Amino acid sequence: MLSCAVLGATGYTGVELTKLLLSHPNVRVSVLTTRQEKPIPLNDVLPGVSKTIGLEITPYSFEEVKKKAEVVFLCLPHTEAMTAGDQFRNAGKVVIDLSADFRLKDPGLYPKWYGVEHVFPERLKEAVYGLCEIHRARIKKADLISNPGCYPTGPSLALIPLLKEKLIDPRSIIINAASGVSGAGKKLVTATHFCEVDGNYNAYKVNKHQHTPEIEQNLSEAAGRDVKITFVPHLLPISRGILATIYAEPAKKVTEAMIRQTLETRYRKEPFVRIKPEGKFPAIKDVQHANFCDIGLSLDARTGRLVILTAIDNLVKGAAGQAVQNMNIRFGFPEEAGLS
Amino acid sequence: MLSCAVLGATGYTGVELTKLLLSHPNVRVSVLTTRQEKPIPLNDVLPGVSKTIGLEITPYSFEEVKKKAEVVFLCLPHTEAMTAGDQFRNAGKVVIDLSADFRLKDPGLYPKWYGVEHVFPERLKEAVYGLCEIHRARIKKADLISNPGCYPTGPSLALIPLLKEKLIDPRSIIINAASGVSGAGKKLVTATHFCEVDGNYNAYKVNKHQHTPEIEQNLSEAAGRDVKITFVPHLLPISRGILATIYAEPAKKVTEAMIRQTLETRYRKEPFVRIKPEGKFPAIKDVQHANFCDIGLSLDARTGRLVILTAIDNLVKGAAGQAVQNMNIRFGFPEEAGLS
Amino acid sequence: MLSCAVLGATGYTGVELTKLLLSHPNVRVSVLTTRQEKPIPLNDVLPGVSKTIGLEITPYSFEEVKKKAEVVFLCLPHTEAMTAGDQFRNAGKVVIDLSADFRLKDPGLYPKWYGVEHVFPERLKEAVYGLCEIHRARIKKADLISNPGCYPTGPSLALIPLLKEKLIDPRSIIINAASGVSGAGKKLVTATHFCEVDGNYNAYKVNKHQHTPEIEQNLSEAAGRDVKITFVPHLLPISRGILATIYAEPAKKVTEAMIRQTLETRYRKEPFVRIKPEGKFPAIKDVQHANFCDIGLSLDARTGRLVILTAIDNLVKGAAGQAVQNMNIRFGFPEEAGLS
Amino acid sequence: MLSCAVLGATGYTGVELTKLLLSHPNVRVSVLTTRQEKPIPLNDVLPGVSKTIGLEITPYSFEEVKKKAEVVFLCLPHTEAMTAGDQFRNAGKVVIDLSADFRLKDPGLYPKWYGVEHVFPERLKEAVYGLCEIHRARIKKADLISNPGCYPTGPSLALIPLLKEKLIDPRSIIINAASGVSGAGKKLVTATHFCEVDGNYNAYKVNKHQHTPEIEQNLSEAAGRDVKITFVPHLLPISRGILATIYAEPAKKVTEAMIRQTLETRYRKEPFVRIKPEGKFPAIKDVQHANFCDIGLSLDARTGRLVILTAIDNLVKGAAGQAVQNMNIRFGFPEEAGLS
Repeated sequence: MLSCAVLGATGYTGVELTKLLLSHPNVRVSVLTTRQEKPIPLNDVLPGVSKTIGLEITPYSFEEVKKKAEVVFLCLPHTEAMTAGDQFRNAGKVVIDLSADFRLKDPGLYPKWYGVEHVFPERLKEAVYGLCEIHRARIKKADLISNPGCYPTGPSLALIPLLKEKLIDPRSIIINAASGVSGAGKKLVTATHFCEVDGNYNAYKVNKHQHTPEIEQNLSEAAGRDVKITFVPHLLPISRGILATIYAEPAKKVTEAMIRQTLETRYRKEPFVRIKPEGKFPAIKDVQHANFCDIGLSLDARTGRLVILTAIDNLVKGAAGQAVQNMNIRFGFPEEAGLS
Repeated sequence: MLSCAVLGATGYTGVELTKLLLSHPNVRVSVLTTRQEKPIPLNDVLPGVSKTIGLEITPYSFEEVKKKAEVVFLCLPHTEAMTAGDQFRNAGKVVIDLSADFRLKDPGLYPKWYGVEHVFPERLKEAVYGLCEIHRARIKKADLISNPGCYPTGPSLALIPLLKEKLIDPRSIIINAASGVSGAGKKLVTATHFCEVDGNYNAYKVNKHQHTPEIEQNLSEAAGRDVKITFVPHLLPISRGILATIYAEPAKKVTEAMIRQTLETRYRKEPFVRIKPEGKFPAIKDVQHANFCDIGLSLDARTGRLVILTAIDNLVKGAAGQAVQNMNIRFGFPEEAGLS
Repeated sequence: MLSCAVLGATGYTGVELTKLLLSHPNVRVSVLTTRQEKPIPLNDVLPGVSKTIGLEITPYSFEEVKKKAEVVFLCLPHTEAMTAGDQFRNAGKVVIDLSADFRLKDPGLYPKWYGVEHVFPERLKEAVYGLCEIHRARIKKADLISNPGCYPTGPSLALIPLLKEKLIDPRSIIINAASGVSGAGKKLVTATHFCEVDGNYNAYKVNKHQHTPEIEQNLSEAAGRDVKITFVPHLLPISRGILATIYAEPAKKVTEAMIRQTLETRYRKEPFVRIKPEGKFPAIKDVQHANFCDIGLSLDARTGRLVILTAIDNLVKGAAGQAVQNMNIRFGFPEEAGLS
Repeated sequence: MLSCAVLGATGYTGVELTKLLLSHPNVRVSVLTTRQEKPIPLNDVLPGVSKTIGLEITPYSFEEVKKKAEVVFLCLPHTEAMTAGDQFRNAGKVVIDLSADFRLKDPGLYPKWYGVEHVFPERLKEAVYGLCEIHRARIKKADLISNPGCYPTGPSLALIPLLKEKLIDPRSIIINAASGVSGAGKKLVTATHFCEVDGNYNAYKVNKHQHTPEIEQNLSEAAGRDVKITFVPHLLPISRGILATIYAEPAKKVTEAMIRQTLETRYRKEPFVRIKPEGKFPAIKDVQHANFCDIGLSLDARTGRLVILTAIDNLVKGAAGQAVQNMNIRFGFPEEAGLS
């Protein structure tokens, strides 16, 4: 049994990850930590667990985590995972980071999009970007895995194969995405007060969201050239799930069937990516509490424009589920272990 | 006091319209009708009205409506308003139709988008499209006013001035819209069951929604050329409101300030259109239960692409409120009467 | 035009009150204040108002309010209104307090239920409890009106006539109430985070809610004896509205018809209290955004127990609407002015 | 592997049961049926299942079910399970019925509460009421198990031990319950339209709900005397979960500690019943998607009245989960199998 630590186990992502690890047949949750000063019974944040589990979330101690865990999951706020990641790598641990701190290859992007200088830029080269279906071979050998962001996951899975095959124009990509509120975390801000969200819907960080360069990094790598996208996120009055509606211009003579075929072929053997048949489209309900990424598409004969829709659960395939999948790949467990 | 009839007074639009008319200082609600066979106390569908109003919604009778009302509002399903509209025009009434039956100038579009032949195509020439802020002069003299659709209202108000001034490329327009469930009407279908909608979000009628040709008609008129758009509607887990996120390519050398300035100038004197300042964007909550159309925008320096957001309440500015505004214009009442 | 001040105009109650006062034909909103340090455009918290209203919410200044307003509405947190109420009474203003600070006649109850000593206990004698339909005569002459709590309003209106007529056993009263989240205010606490409320429902402050002594004061006065109740509030995943489900033992030989008749007779002329006919029950949707209190009831032949249901909008009849109604009574305006 | 059939596999209960059975280590889902005329891919109603499961829900055939399944789960509407239950018992199958058709021992109650005569009243004697924690010994030997109703489950688990120990007055019991919309099933009625439920809350079937005699049967058996209760159900704007708030008079000299102790002792070894510590109360969120019944309580020193709260997921412990638990007991599987 692999021993696991979850740092930041009281946030929405940490709770979801703990839940998944507790039901995983190959691992043992050995330590859960919080920045709070007093221990918290796990049952207070995760009431759905068995009556007999007596786990506690304890105030963070580097030494304790180092002693107890072989793999360390970082569910810390952006900019706080940099140092922890470096420390646990120095201690020889496998680190799976769910923050953005090791996602961008170019350290120069951190000041602009995250408002901080990266304090361990050399770790960015070491880190493997854990988009499982795309980077599996490298994840197998990685000791510092950077788990993808919630917004980038769906659109990247849909667009990377199409860009590699040059089926769409890389200059034409627009991503209109909508996320449930858990994506904003548990921090108390007016924007997540029930009365502000209930019955409402709005865009935010228009043209300014910090996931923009992450998506562009993924798409540029696939296209073999610099890709710039338009990305507009919206806040949905639901707890969890992301639907991305993507617009792009297909390359000449490309048909809807060719695009669907390319995606189906690419993901045929993947247990967590499902391509919808013609005329069917993803819905958030279909993927809630599951590690799926559903992809649907329509090429409009009237305008020649391509519409691609992707749906994931932001806390599962967009965070904790993909982190478990990365662990499964890295340690040679069955890829669906703990995820079905 | 102008005497008004509402046909189809039990649907969401009919109820909203009745509520507005009851508080209107210049009109009297003289008859409310239903296709059901028994009278329904108004209070059963509109419990928020005064305790002492004893109005009933009665089974439809052409003769009764003809006798009692000077203006006839049609809140009937699409394809059922054609005949009623023709009949009440023949009877000399002013007709304000909230269905799609008199919106499209080209009768050839009805079979394709609504699945029926238009039975009174000559009335399409007579009908004035009641987008109040754009067609006010013609509405003043109209006896058959076709109230705009809920999805077309916001994007048309935002884009028409920009197309007229040639500030955006008419071939580049993508409208990603999200609507509350009342837009789907009161009809019982699985898609509007609470458990199907709650916590969910999905696109529907991708590239196939019947409001597409209506938006294109509006934009083509403004652009002076044939405009084709990509339009993808989504269903939100809220009762009312529409947010449209519009993507377009600006013309050369056009700045965000120029676009904002154009809209502000165009709508400065309009009580119901509000342009958000730089960095602020519309939210559905801001317009619920009100007749406003809020418009915000951002031109992304990185990609050169323009994002415009519009928000309305689909039952007010997108239906009943705009119908009252049309009546106010037609009969010379103050334009805000009954709407503030 | 009566000049009005609203202190605490950025909270949910203050915003609702401002909205009502702005559409009131007999008053002028002359000053809105906040404890924040910078002015806030009214449109930021109340986006539904007319485009042309340029009001600001300004940092609180006693002198400014004193100079500008004849009536002062206090929408301050409990325990903060005591001093303001005393000061504005000393300045000769009519004060309508929406907090609990002048509701309880016995100052000894404040330490137990609100955790503070009352600093101006002599004002408790002067204050008139503004349950409009019950205390209208005294409200007409009051200069310090204590607006009832949201939970007490519905049950008090339903039970006071029945206790006065000795139709129910005063020892048997159980009030099971459920409120929308706006009742908890705008303060940021985990309990009102969207993800905590969405899809959830739970009781809170079981047998400990601070509205308990207020309800008991109302019922004891009506019964002419000391009444103790069981009161269990619950949090609903909605923004606004309260439904109270009340259980009581009827006195001997009392029938459902007698109880309904008593309530109907008592409230026949009241515009804001509506008694449901046999077999019909209140729903929160029926009273949202309105000043109604709806009351329904059923006497179970099997158990002999009486069930009474009351519904109000906590922000309207349970706060801002009733405050306006109190002002209307006090200043001789039509009682429905600004409320229909 | 035990072969299982689910009849009525497209409803909310049938879907939930299918989901649980598919992940159960000891069973095989061999046939899923519908009353519809055409087969339905399982993935259409249960999109969360693995990509590679190719199950279909097929039009109902008695012979096919008889041939393929050892245990038959009936997820049919009330009054439609009577005949199916009789037929499959005649065919020698173990039947677990999730409808109400075999719950009441007195056939005379069916006409009054369900509007029909029972057509196989002799089966009522054979049927074992499957409240697992109470009737485990009899369930082990039962071939016709009647799965408890959603509303009766929580209150029965809380009250039966207290009545057996004579800690509460059996004449004093009031059950105020609130359920998510899935409890009303998937049938299309106005009451479950999203726009009717969203933001709303109301009581229904006041003093008339068909689960009343079922609860009374359970409590009467425990009390050893005829118990009549007051039961008022309410509809919550959530998809799943039931919270019951129960009021009762304790017997003389009974303390809160004695009541809590009695429940803790009774359920100490039960994996699915959890007693909350003093001052903590159940919430629907804590039990969603889980087979738990959480119980909390408070005895009010002021009034001497006892308040007990119970929470379950109506589709799990209130239906499909308890059905699986019954199967586990009957076939000697670990009781938590497929449920954790």
